[in-house]
Amino acid sequence: MPVIAIPKELATAERRIAIVPEVADKLEKLGAKIQIEKGLGQSAFLEDDAFNSASVVDDAASLYQAADVVLKVQPPTLDEIKQMKPGTLLIGALAPFQHLDVVAALKEANITALSMELIPRITRAQAMDILSSQATVAGYKAVLMAADIAPVFFPMLTTAAGTIRPSKVLIIGAGVAGLQAIATARRLGAIVEGYDVRSATKEQVESLGAKFVEMPFKAEGEGGYARPLTEEEKQQQQEVLAKHVAASQIVITTAAIPGRASPKIISKDMVEAMASGAVIIDLAAEGGGNCELSQPGETVNHNNVVIHAPLNVTSQMPTHASDMYSRNLYNLLALMVKDGELNLDWDDEILQGCVLTHEGEVKNAAVAEAMQNA
Amino acid sequence: MPVIAIPKELATAERRIAIVPEVADKLEKLGAKIQIEKGLGQSAFLEDDAFNSASVVDDAASLYQAADVVLKVQPPTLDEIKQMKPGTLLIGALAPFQHLDVVAALKEANITALSMELIPRITRAQAMDILSSQATVAGYKAVLMAADIAPVFFPMLTTAAGTIRPSKVLIIGAGVAGLQAIATARRLGAIVEGYDVRSATKEQVESLGAKFVEMPFKAEGEGGYARPLTEEEKQQQQEVLAKHVAASQIVITTAAIPGRASPKIISKDMVEAMASGAVIIDLAAEGGGNCELSQPGETVNHNNVVIHAPLNVTSQMPTHASDMYSRNLYNLLALMVKDGELNLDWDDEILQGCVLTHEGEVKNAAVAEAMQNA
Repeated sequence: MPVIAIPKELATAERRIAIVPEVADKLEKLGAKIQIEKGLGQSAFLEDDAFNSASVVDDAASLYQAADVVLKVQPPTLDEIKQMKPGTLLIGALAPFQHLDVVAALKEANITALSMELIPRITRAQAMDILSSQATVAGYKAVLMAADIAPVFFPMLTTAAGTIRPSKVLIIGAGVAGLQAIATARRLGAIVEGYDVRSATKEQVESLGAKFVEMPFKAEGEGGYARPLTEEEKQQQQEVLAKHVAASQIVITTAAIPGRASPKIISKDMVEAMASGAVIIDLAAEGGGNCELSQPGETVNHNNVVIHAPLNVTSQMPTHASDMYSRNLYNLLALMVKDGELNLDWDDEILQGCVLTHEGEVKNAAVAEAMQNA
Repeated sequence: MPVIAIPKELATAERRIAIVPEVADKLEKLGAKIQIEKGLGQSAFLEDDAFNSASVVDDAASLYQAADVVLKVQPPTLDEIKQMKPGTLLIGALAPFQHLDVVAALKEANITALSMELIPRITRAQAMDILSSQATVAGYKAVLMAADIAPVFFPMLTTAAGTIRPSKVLIIGAGVAGLQAIATARRLGAIVEGYDVRSATKEQVESLGAKFVEMPFKAEGEGGYARPLTEEEKQQQQEVLAKHVAASQIVITTAAIPGRASPKIISKDMVEAMASGAVIIDLAAEGGGNCELSQPGETVNHNNVVIHAPLNVTSQMPTHASDMYSRNLYNLLALMVKDGELNLDWDDEILQGCVLTHEGEVKNAAVAEAMQNA
């Protein structure tokens, strides 16, 4: 009977947890034994006794000693890795390109590490896609942040003191986060425009009640992401976007590419052409931000335009972000845990896609290359 | 040609301003001359040059010397009153019952003071009703605060990682703020219940898509406010509400009565029966709050229930709050300024209702009584 252990997250601002009670119950039904570290759910408003059937362990060291499988949100620290037994299966959002030292330590410690962000984006694996589930949270949250900072209403109002005009909101990037932001801003009654370099997103943007900002070129790339633009295209993009940014009271940018620097889409000049009281929410802050003036983790006021570039946005809605993250993990684990046995099928393309280290080797080619070049 | 002067607001957290450029232009058209203090609009993201036709005065002292009419948001300080000329017409949200010393000083200084909150709530004066216009802002903002603090989504979502159930929101008090909160929470996709002691509000609550919480008694009072409840009724109210509060993830209370202590509707026991991660937004914090555990101006966590009791909520949306406040003032001034002359018609019930001090006398009977009892 495999022991699945969930330690407390150590990163300061991380409020999500890798398992919620509903998923713990489901894993027990598959024949696993769940052990959680004392106080695991505090940051997400969950008491230990909410985890009915799980054992509560007082210290992380004992937890790691008993664990066959360890579930995490953030990558483990080097100290956490030292406490894991060789052969432990570790599953989490391991962000390998940002933590090559962690990958090296996992390899040395002979840990089998699966990185959730590397799960191939195929239909069968949609229910395991943490990029999508967490982007849903971030897109929703970005609109709430914008509405909270903005000095104006989003909806149109007809009052005895006259009419209030609705806010104009521009959402840049129509991936999962961008589409959720569009839907949420529309819910709140704003007039919404959406833009993405991939013109194929036009239909989705329009189906949510937003207007699509058209460009004179197409830029679909591989794996659902946009290809890099040529210099001329970049200039065209800047010119068209500049007009729409200047006419918007709220701009939300969501053009993040995992493991790469975020493209700078909103220049200083574009910010300076915005009206006083305008707000920019930069969801690509982890990669440096989509706005030239963004300071990741900070809120800056530039000539009366407020630029908010929050980090780890999903942690600010820990209950539902954890629910979704945990269900993603469950759907992956359900492939491996059957009748109380843990079996990894290395012929499965999902496992092949997300395995980072196994039996003392780095299994992901791109990560191995990055480690050699580091 | 009357000079209408607008000094900067001195209260720290006050970001609203008593005049916006649109209203300044309209007052000039009535034949008034507008003078603003340098930097007036900064807190609401407005530069001085946004006020096209207004003169910008460097210091408040010169402004007061030139003023026939002074427009304010917050009550003036005693020092500000000293700078006003005898006979000056002062219009603002003067909150006389909370500032009896200010009323005394206005009387001594021979200021004609009109308090916007005292304008009678008659049809003709609806467009001057700052209680309504500012409550509209507060009700909208309360929902954004709740959604921002809550660890969960408001809307229902169907995602690859499973279904997210919509949040249950209870709005207590169905005045302007409560109804706007209901409308906003509904916009965001929550399941909403509304409650008010005045059962006549049932229809309005239901017309916004919320369910009305029914009580076994009726409590309509004078002037659109609820009458005080008997002890037995209070207990019945508590019992019914306790069930609905316990079943809600978000509770927003809006039962504020201007100039009086806010009724305590949510007891400590009721908070303790709420689920972990629940959020209470108490919009009645100025009067001490509707929740027994509210600390005005603070956010407290009681057994994993977050109780947020913000002060001066409208200041957090200064542009539109100022727009509406300033239009309310304009509609009152339009009764008095004609063809470049200032004429106060003391036979008008609106003026009779809102006048606080005039020709060295306190004109409002209730305020005069409060001063004698103080």
